[in-house]
Amino acid sequence: GVLGSGDFARSLAVRLVCSGFRVVVGSRNPKRKANLFPAAAEVTFQAEAVKKADVIFVAIFREHYSTLCDLADVLVGKILVDVSNNTEINHHKESNAEYLASLFPACTVVKAFNVVSAWTLQSGARDGNKQVLICSNNQEAKRTIAEIAQVMGFTPVDMGCMSSACEIENIPLRLLPAWKIPIFLALGLFLCFFTYNLIRQVIHPYIREQKNKLYKIPIEVVNTTLPCVSYVMLSLVYLPGVLAACSQLYYGTKYRRFPDWLDQWLQHRKQIGLLSFFCAALHAVYSLCLPMRRSHRYLLIETAVKQAMEKKMTVWVEEEVWRMEIYISVGIIALGLLSLLAITSLPSIANSLNWREFSFIQ
Amino acid sequence: GVLGSGDFARSLAVRLVCSGFRVVVGSRNPKRKANLFPAAAEVTFQAEAVKKADVIFVAIFREHYSTLCDLADVLVGKILVDVSNNTEINHHKESNAEYLASLFPACTVVKAFNVVSAWTLQSGARDGNKQVLICSNNQEAKRTIAEIAQVMGFTPVDMGCMSSACEIENIPLRLLPAWKIPIFLALGLFLCFFTYNLIRQVIHPYIREQKNKLYKIPIEVVNTTLPCVSYVMLSLVYLPGVLAACSQLYYGTKYRRFPDWLDQWLQHRKQIGLLSFFCAALHAVYSLCLPMRRSHRYLLIETAVKQAMEKKMTVWVEEEVWRMEIYISVGIIALGLLSLLAITSLPSIANSLNWREFSFIQ
Amino acid sequence: GVLGSGDFARSLAVRLVCSGFRVVVGSRNPKRKANLFPAAAEVTFQAEAVKKADVIFVAIFREHYSTLCDLADVLVGKILVDVSNNTEINHHKESNAEYLASLFPACTVVKAFNVVSAWTLQSGARDGNKQVLICSNNQEAKRTIAEIAQVMGFTPVDMGCMSSACEIENIPLRLLPAWKIPIFLALGLFLCFFTYNLIRQVIHPYIREQKNKLYKIPIEVVNTTLPCVSYVMLSLVYLPGVLAACSQLYYGTKYRRFPDWLDQWLQHRKQIGLLSFFCAALHAVYSLCLPMRRSHRYLLIETAVKQAMEKKMTVWVEEEVWRMEIYISVGIIALGLLSLLAITSLPSIANSLNWREFSFIQ
Repeated sequence: GVLGSGDFARSLAVRLVCSGFRVVVGSRNPKRKANLFPAAAEVTFQAEAVKKADVIFVAIFREHYSTLCDLADVLVGKILVDVSNNTEINHHKESNAEYLASLFPACTVVKAFNVVSAWTLQSGARDGNKQVLICSNNQEAKRTIAEIAQVMGFTPVDMGCMSSACEIENIPLRLLPAWKIPIFLALGLFLCFFTYNLIRQVIHPYIREQKNKLYKIPIEVVNTTLPCVSYVMLSLVYLPGVLAACSQLYYGTKYRRFPDWLDQWLQHRKQIGLLSFFCAALHAVYSLCLPMRRSHRYLLIETAVKQAMEKKMTVWVEEEVWRMEIYISVGIIALGLLSLLAITSLPSIANSLNWREFSFIQ
Repeated sequence: GVLGSGDFARSLAVRLVCSGFRVVVGSRNPKRKANLFPAAAEVTFQAEAVKKADVIFVAIFREHYSTLCDLADVLVGKILVDVSNNTEINHHKESNAEYLASLFPACTVVKAFNVVSAWTLQSGARDGNKQVLICSNNQEAKRTIAEIAQVMGFTPVDMGCMSSACEIENIPLRLLPAWKIPIFLALGLFLCFFTYNLIRQVIHPYIREQKNKLYKIPIEVVNTTLPCVSYVMLSLVYLPGVLAACSQLYYGTKYRRFPDWLDQWLQHRKQIGLLSFFCAALHAVYSLCLPMRRSHRYLLIETAVKQAMEKKMTVWVEEEVWRMEIYISVGIIALGLLSLLAITSLPSIANSLNWREFSFIQ
Repeated sequence: GVLGSGDFARSLAVRLVCSGFRVVVGSRNPKRKANLFPAAAEVTFQAEAVKKADVIFVAIFREHYSTLCDLADVLVGKILVDVSNNTEINHHKESNAEYLASLFPACTVVKAFNVVSAWTLQSGARDGNKQVLICSNNQEAKRTIAEIAQVMGFTPVDMGCMSSACEIENIPLRLLPAWKIPIFLALGLFLCFFTYNLIRQVIHPYIREQKNKLYKIPIEVVNTTLPCVSYVMLSLVYLPGVLAACSQLYYGTKYRRFPDWLDQWLQHRKQIGLLSFFCAALHAVYSLCLPMRRSHRYLLIETAVKQAMEKKMTVWVEEEVWRMEIYISVGIIALGLLSLLAITSLPSIANSLNWREFSFIQ
C-alpha cells in the first residue's frame, strides 16, 4: 500500500509494480489521481487501501501525518514505512519516523527509502548499487522491508533501532561534510602563502626599485603559492598518524580513545590528501603554461637582442641548467606518484585492494 | 539441469558446481562430451537429465529449440531458463524466450543470464557487481532463479514480465547507444568550426597576401576549433534544463510529458558534457604543445634577429602581456572545475553522492 | 557467540549488535574485558557463551586454538566460524580452518570474514561493496553464515568446499600479484633503452667531439626512453592474443589448454597495457616540460645571437616545421585514445560495458 500521490508516491508505485508486487494506492481523491499511477496499481480511498495492504508506505509530508489519525483503527498491526525527508538538518526535535510512531503506537514503524530519490526509483533498475538504509525497533518488520528493497534492486543496510532514524533523515541533507574543514584549511593556507608571495614578488620590487611587476599576479604568484599549499597539506596527511602512534606509545595502550581533535583529523586525511594532489596538479599545469605567455616571449627576445648588441656569444650557465633539469625531473616523478595515490582513492579501486596492498601504496 | 555442451553450458555448469548446486548435464552424446565438464557434474542423455532436475538451463541456439520437442513430456511443470542471445537487434519477431514458451506451454519459462558472458561466469567469483536481468510471467519461478543467481554471486534484477524479454535480449547487442547522437553532434560541430577556421587562418591569407600558412592546419587550426566545440557542447548541456523548466511554467504542471526530442536531449546531457570536457582537455594539451613546435622557435628567432638589426631594445606590450596572463589563468581554473565535474560522473563516485551534493557540484 | 577479545572480536561484536543480532562474548576474564564491548553484548565465560550460541566466531590466533579443547563437549554440533589470518603466505601445511576442523571433528567449521579488516567491520555500514569469501564442507552452515554476512551489509561469495580455505587465507596477504611481472618487465625495458640512449646521446658525442652533454640525462634521455618502453609494452598487450589465435588455428580446436607461459601472459595484458599508458603519459609530461628548461632558453638565445651577427634573416626550414607539427598532432591523438582505453579499465566503468562495447573500444 502507498499513501500519497506526489512524485515519490508515484515513482514508488511504478517500481513496486515493475518488481512484481501488487500495489494499492490510497488517495483522498482516487478518481482524479488514478491517471497518475500505472494501470496495474489499484487507486482507491485511503481507508480502503490500508485495509487491503500489510505494508503501507507513508509518502506524505510530516505536516500531514495527523490527517491519518482517522485511519488509526484500520492501521492497527500494519507495518508503516516512513519515507519522508526534512528540508533542514535537525529541523524537528524528534525524527519524522519517531513522530509517526508516537501517533500510531499500535503500528510497527520502519524508516526506509528516504535516501533514494524519486528519480532513482524510476530509472534505477539497471543500477543495483544504491543503498537503502533501514531502521526500526521491530526486527521482523525490518527484515520484511529489507526483502522488499532487495527485490526492488536496492541493497538494504540495517542501521539498527529507531533512534538512528534522525541520523538517516539527515543523510540526504548533508553537503559534503567531510570536505568542509579540508577546503577551508586549503583556502586559508592559500591566502597566507599568496600574501607572502605577493609581497615578495610584486610589492617589494615596486617599493625598492619602482619596477611594475603586476603582471606576475595571475600566474607566477599563484604558481609559487600552489606547491607551498600542497606541501603543507601533504605533511598534514601523515602528521596525525605519527601523533596517534606517539599517543599510543605514551599511554601504553591502543584502547584509549584519541582526543576529539585528533580523531577528526585522522578522519579527514583522505580529503586533505586529495586537495594536496589537486594543488600539485594545478601547479604542474601552471608551470607548463609558463613558456606560452607573451611575457616569457618578450623577455626572451629582449635578452637575445641585448646579447647580440653586446656581441656576447655564450649565455650558458651550467649550474642554472642543472638546477632546472633536476627540479623538473623530480617534480614529474613526484606528480606521477601522487597520481597513483589519488587513483587508488577512487572507491571502485580502493575496494579491490586488501589492507596490505593499500598500506604498501601509501 | 543444463541442456547443451557449448562454451556457455560448460561455464554455467562449472559455476553452479562451485556454488554448491548439484548439476546434471543433458547431451546428445554424453560419453564424448563428459570430459568437457567438471567431474562433480553428472553428464547424461537429455531425457535423463531433464527428469532429474527441477530447473533446466537451455543453453542451445534458438534454431535448435525445436529439437527439444521430443522431451515435451518429461519437461512438463519444469522451470526452463532461456539464456540465449541473438546476433542482431530485433532479428526475430518474438524474443527467444517467448518462442521457447510457445513451444512448451506446459513449462514455466524464465529469461535470465543472457547478459553474463561465459568468461564472467568462469572468472567472476571475486566480482559480485555483475547484474543478471530476469523476467518471467511466473513470480515463483522468477524468485527461484533470482536466488540461484544470488548464490552464484550475481545481483539479480527483476525486469517484470515476459514482454521485457525482447529488451533484455537486445542489451548484450547494444553498442554505446547513449553515445551515438552526442558523438555525431561533436563531429558535426568540429567540421563546421574547422572549415571556418581553415578559411580564416589559412585560405584567406593565402588568397589575399599569397602567404603559405599550410603548416597551421594540424595544430593551430585544430586548437582554435576545439574550444568552440567545447563551449557549444557545454551550453547544450544546460539548455534543455532551461527549456524543460519553461515548458513546465508555460503549461503550469510538471506532470505533462515533455516532447520526445526534449526527453532524448535531457537523457544525453551527461554524454554531451563528457565530450565537452574531452574537447576542453584536448585544447589544453594542444595549447601546452604550442611552444614545443619548430615554427614557434623559428618565429621567435626571426623576431629577435629583426629587433637586433633594427637596434630596438623593447618589445614589451603591456596589454598583450595582460591579455595572455588572464586568458591562461582563467583557462586553467575552468579546466580544473570541468575536471571535478567529469570525476563526479564516474559511476563509483556518483553513487556515493546524495542529490543535494550532486546538484551543488553541478 | 564470539570467542576472543582482540580488535577483531570487538569490531565483530559491535557490527553484529548494530545489525540486530543477539551477541554473547566468551572471554577468559569477562569482568576485565566487559568494558571493551558494546553494552548490548553479553560478556561471560567461554563455556557459558558457547552454550548460549549456535554460531560461534573463533576470533583467536591459530596458536591458541588448542586452548579451546576444554570446551569440546559444549561445542558439539555448533557452527564454528574461523576468521583468522596468517602472517605469511602458506606458513602452515594446512589452512587454519582445516586445522580447527581437525581439532573439533564434531563441529561444522566455516571459513569466512578473514578478508574483512576490523576497521571495515566498524566503519563499513555505508559501504556495501565489500565481499566476504565463505567456504565450508557443509552447505547448510555456509548458507547460515552467508545470511549473517548479508544482514551485516557485506556481499557473501561462495568459494566452495573447505579445500579453498588455504586460498582464502592467502588473499589478505597477497601484494599486487598481477603487477609483479609487468612492473619488472617495464623496469627491464626501461634500463635497456636508457643505456642505449645514454650511449647515443651523451657518451658518443663526448668521446667523438669532447662535448659535455651530461645535462641531457635527467630529462632528454629519459624522455626518449619512455616512448620506446611504451611502444614495446603496447605491442606485448596485443601479441599474446595473436599467438593464442594461431595456436587455436594450428591445433584446430579451442578446447586445448594454452601452454602455461601464454596463459600467464594473457592474464597480465591489462596491467601491461596500463603501464604502457603510464609511460606514454609520463612521456607527454616530459615533452611538455622541454621548453621550460634553462638549456632550451640558452640554446634559443645563442642561435638568435649567432643569426643576428651573421645578418641572416631567415631560419625557417619548412620540412622541420612540418615534421614537428605532425609529430605533436599524432602524439596528442594517440594519448587521447590511450586515455580512453585506460578509463574503461576502471572497475566501475568496465562493469557497465557489455562484451561488444568492450571489444569495440579495444
